[in-house]
Amino acid sequence: MSHYLLDHPRQLISLNFFSERYEAAKSSISEDLSIIRRTYKARGTGEVKTYPGAAGGVYYTPMMGPEEAEEFVNSVCKVVDDESRVLPGGYVYLSDLLGQPNILRQTGRLITTQYVGEEIDAVMTAATKGIPLAQAVADQLNVPFVIVRDDAKVTEGSMISVNYLTGSSKRVEKMALSKRSLKAGARVLIVDDFMKAGGTIQGMQTLVREFGGTVVGTAVFAEGRSNVRLLEEYTSLLHVETNVDAGQAIKVQPGNYFKEIYKGKD
Amino acid sequence: MSHYLLDHPRQLISLNFFSERYEAAKSSISEDLSIIRRTYKARGTGEVKTYPGAAGGVYYTPMMGPEEAEEFVNSVCKVVDDESRVLPGGYVYLSDLLGQPNILRQTGRLITTQYVGEEIDAVMTAATKGIPLAQAVADQLNVPFVIVRDDAKVTEGSMISVNYLTGSSKRVEKMALSKRSLKAGARVLIVDDFMKAGGTIQGMQTLVREFGGTVVGTAVFAEGRSNVRLLEEYTSLLHVETNVDAGQAIKVQPGNYFKEIYKGKD
Repeated sequence: MSHYLLDHPRQLISLNFFSERYEAAKSSISEDLSIIRRTYKARGTGEVKTYPGAAGGVYYTPMMGPEEAEEFVNSVCKVVDDESRVLPGGYVYLSDLLGQPNILRQTGRLITTQYVGEEIDAVMTAATKGIPLAQAVADQLNVPFVIVRDDAKVTEGSMISVNYLTGSSKRVEKMALSKRSLKAGARVLIVDDFMKAGGTIQGMQTLVREFGGTVVGTAVFAEGRSNVRLLEEYTSLLHVETNVDAGQAIKVQPGNYFKEIYKGKD
Repeated sequence: MSHYLLDHPRQLISLNFFSERYEAAKSSISEDLSIIRRTYKARGTGEVKTYPGAAGGVYYTPMMGPEEAEEFVNSVCKVVDDESRVLPGGYVYLSDLLGQPNILRQTGRLITTQYVGEEIDAVMTAATKGIPLAQAVADQLNVPFVIVRDDAKVTEGSMISVNYLTGSSKRVEKMALSKRSLKAGARVLIVDDFMKAGGTIQGMQTLVREFGGTVVGTAVFAEGRSNVRLLEEYTSLLHVETNVDAGQAIKVQPGNYFKEIYKGKD
């Protein structure tokens, strides 16, 4: 049952379903759910809520407690804080981290924690490097993810495209999303692996509006240093500065996640 | 404990670890593991093996039983069998399916089932559309995945690149992988969303060898029709033909997965 809940997060599952699936009385199902609820709460894995009545059932929301979150972000900071990760143009090599299932799973749970109780229909990201993160977050939210492309080569059928200005280099670029991949009026969470000025993310916000949708939030794995910042509302897990001065090639700190999430909660 | 095993597949976990984590005697841990083993076996979720001794522990291998596999593949066939998915050039729109966490999770488990007992160090795919599948398979194997690119724009540091011939259009293309993303001598599983002649996959095989690695296997989500087929050994979950004749735009059947996996097992 625990397994089933983990595979079906943020979805109301009726007690009847479990009772039939496991050939058990509803009372023992309820008892087992209480145990699961307590265990998940103690471990900070998430929240299990049961709703009474005919339309009721059980609803599991993956979450990460503040202690585990801090420990996780600090451990990632330590791994990223490595001179050899510095790439030209203020970028940082993160593909190894964003190619590790356990790190992705934890990152997904951490980002999802921000949106407990928010209705989200889809996760959006920009190809290529944002995809693993989008999938990890979508997996915890139990919603589809959609991928915005910048190349026309991809065979996806008819697309809606927008132009956007990259914040750092002031070039005009184009991004496109397959028309059939997002339904009209969708509530969208935007995620990306790395943000500098935020031009790509601004482009995605425009694209969401072009589809008649709403941007629920924006979450990035790491933010870099930028002289311009095109958007105000976002959360980042890491804050990375490269070429800080002659003696230090990289400086990594936790991003604004904790400030944003726990503000006013003290 | 069930949760922990699911999050740490294909990894030996000592009973001491569980015993400390849950503050329980090893004997009750063993008992609980027996229940988990029987439940997983009955549900076809996978295999839980315990090894005795000081160096022993418990090892969970995700698997999908033949019945669930057939049901899953048939249900996907039905969804793909839709004229409006046909794209120019013999391609088929699959991004919606490969953007759904539950379908990805099941596909990952299904593909992993082929490689029970095989040592695999990494999953490889080609950007962009193979990424979600690679991540889903890597998640079940509990190994990193690496992404081969065809664009030079990507900021990934120094790369190793190879040229390859696309099977369908006989063009010479180039693909590259960041030097630091794959360690020398790695045992690699290649996955991709769609295969026609197999040129891209052949390119990836060359790249694996260029890194001094070994190709453990090749698994694709769907294979299309092609006059040439550049490789022999692969498994596909779906076989899709487009523009079969004037009256039928698409024809979808299960791929060679079942033939390959269960051959000689009757």
